[in-house]
Amino acid sequence: MLVETEQPWPRNVWYQAAWSQEIGAKPLARTILNQPLALFRGADGKVGALEDRCCHRGSALSMGTVVPDGLQCGYHGMVFDAGGKCVHIPGQDSIPPQARVKSFPVVERQEFVWIWLGDPEKADPAAIVDYPWNDDAKNWPHKHGRSRVKCNYMLLMDNLMDLTHIPFIHRKTVGGGVVMEQVNARMDVKRTERGVHFIRWMRSITPPPTYVKGAGFPPRIKVDRWQEFEFVAPASVIQWTGALPVGCGAEQNRDQPGGFSLRMYHGAAPETHGSCHYFWTGANGYRQSEPEATEQLYSELAATFEEDIAFLEAQYERIMADPHRPLVDIKHDSARVQMRRAVERMIREENKTPHAAGAIAAE
Amino acid sequence: MLVETEQPWPRNVWYQAAWSQEIGAKPLARTILNQPLALFRGADGKVGALEDRCCHRGSALSMGTVVPDGLQCGYHGMVFDAGGKCVHIPGQDSIPPQARVKSFPVVERQEFVWIWLGDPEKADPAAIVDYPWNDDAKNWPHKHGRSRVKCNYMLLMDNLMDLTHIPFIHRKTVGGGVVMEQVNARMDVKRTERGVHFIRWMRSITPPPTYVKGAGFPPRIKVDRWQEFEFVAPASVIQWTGALPVGCGAEQNRDQPGGFSLRMYHGAAPETHGSCHYFWTGANGYRQSEPEATEQLYSELAATFEEDIAFLEAQYERIMADPHRPLVDIKHDSARVQMRRAVERMIREENKTPHAAGAIAAE
Amino acid sequence: MLVETEQPWPRNVWYQAAWSQEIGAKPLARTILNQPLALFRGADGKVGALEDRCCHRGSALSMGTVVPDGLQCGYHGMVFDAGGKCVHIPGQDSIPPQARVKSFPVVERQEFVWIWLGDPEKADPAAIVDYPWNDDAKNWPHKHGRSRVKCNYMLLMDNLMDLTHIPFIHRKTVGGGVVMEQVNARMDVKRTERGVHFIRWMRSITPPPTYVKGAGFPPRIKVDRWQEFEFVAPASVIQWTGALPVGCGAEQNRDQPGGFSLRMYHGAAPETHGSCHYFWTGANGYRQSEPEATEQLYSELAATFEEDIAFLEAQYERIMADPHRPLVDIKHDSARVQMRRAVERMIREENKTPHAAGAIAAE
Repeated sequence: MLVETEQPWPRNVWYQAAWSQEIGAKPLARTILNQPLALFRGADGKVGALEDRCCHRGSALSMGTVVPDGLQCGYHGMVFDAGGKCVHIPGQDSIPPQARVKSFPVVERQEFVWIWLGDPEKADPAAIVDYPWNDDAKNWPHKHGRSRVKCNYMLLMDNLMDLTHIPFIHRKTVGGGVVMEQVNARMDVKRTERGVHFIRWMRSITPPPTYVKGAGFPPRIKVDRWQEFEFVAPASVIQWTGALPVGCGAEQNRDQPGGFSLRMYHGAAPETHGSCHYFWTGANGYRQSEPEATEQLYSELAATFEEDIAFLEAQYERIMADPHRPLVDIKHDSARVQMRRAVERMIREENKTPHAAGAIAAE
Repeated sequence: MLVETEQPWPRNVWYQAAWSQEIGAKPLARTILNQPLALFRGADGKVGALEDRCCHRGSALSMGTVVPDGLQCGYHGMVFDAGGKCVHIPGQDSIPPQARVKSFPVVERQEFVWIWLGDPEKADPAAIVDYPWNDDAKNWPHKHGRSRVKCNYMLLMDNLMDLTHIPFIHRKTVGGGVVMEQVNARMDVKRTERGVHFIRWMRSITPPPTYVKGAGFPPRIKVDRWQEFEFVAPASVIQWTGALPVGCGAEQNRDQPGGFSLRMYHGAAPETHGSCHYFWTGANGYRQSEPEATEQLYSELAATFEEDIAFLEAQYERIMADPHRPLVDIKHDSARVQMRRAVERMIREENKTPHAAGAIAAE
Repeated sequence: MLVETEQPWPRNVWYQAAWSQEIGAKPLARTILNQPLALFRGADGKVGALEDRCCHRGSALSMGTVVPDGLQCGYHGMVFDAGGKCVHIPGQDSIPPQARVKSFPVVERQEFVWIWLGDPEKADPAAIVDYPWNDDAKNWPHKHGRSRVKCNYMLLMDNLMDLTHIPFIHRKTVGGGVVMEQVNARMDVKRTERGVHFIRWMRSITPPPTYVKGAGFPPRIKVDRWQEFEFVAPASVIQWTGALPVGCGAEQNRDQPGGFSLRMYHGAAPETHGSCHYFWTGANGYRQSEPEATEQLYSELAATFEEDIAFLEAQYERIMADPHRPLVDIKHDSARVQMRRAVERMIREENKTPHAAGAIAAE
């Protein structure tokens, strides 16, 4: 049996490669699934993804320049179109057919840039996770973050599937208040077609600092707080959390003014087995017309995730010191265990297809 | 034959893990013999040593918090007592028996924290090195230091067993003066039950800068200087060095006022094969009522050991580039060679016991 | 077939170890062909090269001190002469015959320090590359540079053999102007006994910024520009580049005032397979009596080579991610391919000799 941190990743899936805003006039170097990439926005505005290695002398194409016909290598000037074909060699008329680099399917949608590194024939944009709130900046003003984390991407997913960590790690932001009020939430977990869904309800609890700052809850108020998380394999989590004052009937209707309401997306893209990119976005659903509220929320979330990252990196180091040694599951791991199984199922499915299995073996 | 830097360490011995003062309100992360540890001072004031890996998700326990019942993991709140038993899982009543982490015997004595990483049944506190001067701050006011050194711990012991390095490396502090006066000391070496003892006498020599500053020797005075070192295997050195003006009869009685007198302890704890912790303490035996004299001594010693560390790290790098290539012993290696033999005997003894041998093989 | 970056280096050749000016009162630590060296200037003014490892305890001799008889180890004071023989052990009269370190032939000439790491019997100074301009500071005032580059040394040679990179990478210095004017140079390549020679002529082109600053060309002037490069295996490039206003008959006579004229030497010394030392010198052949012109040239060249180094290091990383994957040669690789062949021939020749082959196998 594979230890969890050695579990290979699914390949025939879309991973987030970047936020749209990251890809501007200059190419972006990023590695996903051990594949160094040069991501660029072509003259037509479309995002292209080429391997980050010129076929001529191996230079990093991400150090090149966007030109009308594609991406020009910064070393000797060869130009590649978004399909990876060489379309220009300075000072040479004929272009040999082997002058090409690998290209990868890319879809830009809802401010995400998604990449497909598996079998290109299977790349179906319909499989991309839907996160419509990024398209609704009026009702859900938001701001994106990204960090490189030195751990296997699954540890980040684990983190999001067991929220009892929040009152321990995040006392200054989303976890402050009374520890056991938050630990003892009612937790409903259900398996979904593509992953796991859970909702946690904490009734009549002290709201944490981020909620108080955001919603302006008065001192000593008690709130009903919810945490609704949906995991979509292999590496996406859609979150809706918030709180309303006790007595508002939050469980019947969470869409009421006067409370705190946060929509989030969390995604991980494996960089290597031991590192990943953490993409997140947080949308202010409580003071939508106030940009400073969105900024404040961003700062609180960024500080929160820095706390997670410090734990995750130390955790990964400790696990890798003895990766085959067993760990002990507890009651609060219920959603986490289902999340792991969903990814394992995905990998098993992929391995049944001879083609995809070959792609994995080649790694 | 093992090359010296690859020599495994004895396991069934006490190693210094920390100075008492290092373990306060927050747990301390430290690795000894490749074992990451969380050292903490429990609510009862006693020091505990747990492996630095929570049995739940592998988090670093050293990032946790001391609570009344033990050390609480900072990730999901499990609490472990000093014996490694899990005594609390937030939100869960029953605690599975496998919920435990490794714990290690610890003895705190004379401002040292000692740890035993070998067979726990053999852990006898009577074997701990005695250094009573740490308990006598009135006559021997002192201050402790610690550094992480990127070399095998034995190179540090080597350094202390051949003091002819002092006039070459430490010209600004304990080695200044006339080189050959210090090299040509009379050296008496004798094997002891647990290691090696030597004393070096330099008669009628120029005192080095640290001695002049400390004792206030007038210009152009000559002193009789001694260096008495006792090595106790595997990694302790007890030092008494000093000087008295010529004519005082230093060799007959070293306990006279008007001179320089320094008691030291040096200890190494292997962190990995290629790194160690260097613990040292230096006691002012000449101006005991002046705290600034103790501070000055500390500064001089800290500067001195930085010079050693620079040499040791470069030396280790050079040796490891070709670890099986022989070196050449010279006359001044007599105590050093006996020190090495004492450690080798200790390892051989340990390997005779089937249990302990297993412990080594498992590394 | 070896991939190019794994190609072993010739051993029975002279490599540049340093510039003369680098070796002053203190020894210099430098690694060439994986051999750590202590380079020092003895009391007689001659440069010596010893392995950087004392035979006593493995210390770095480069941390020692030059004394009248040779280089004294900084740890316990053993002294080695330039031939590697131990000539002094402090406090010990007899010196055992095995007390010696490896020494290597060194020749200091024309401001270069050359070292021979192969079979010492074959070390013939007549094989050293001649660069007489370093001896003619009046007509060719110059200044030297050195960088450590994290790539195989051959990538640096590649860089110098395909100058079409200049208008792409060096737009601010020697490559500014019109890209295709520089790409479409007339290129004459010829194989030489010891490598490759080429000359490129760009007629009636816009001069690049470094040339304009240096020669004071007026706005909108067109120049005839040349790039003459001679590669001498394994790792030397002698360069003469410059430009004269159109109409001067530059092709008939390049030695005319009123233009830009630069003599350069580029050399690489492999440090490890994945790193090298880049030595270069640039001589001002246009405003020889103005030291500030030489300084300005130095600054322009240093900035230029920083740009190359950034590309080379990224290129090496990309190539090493998949070192056996083929690359695609283009027309402009003609001199580069001949350069590679010259080095391969040199290695093959060396391998025919049983002795030298042994030296390589021992690496």
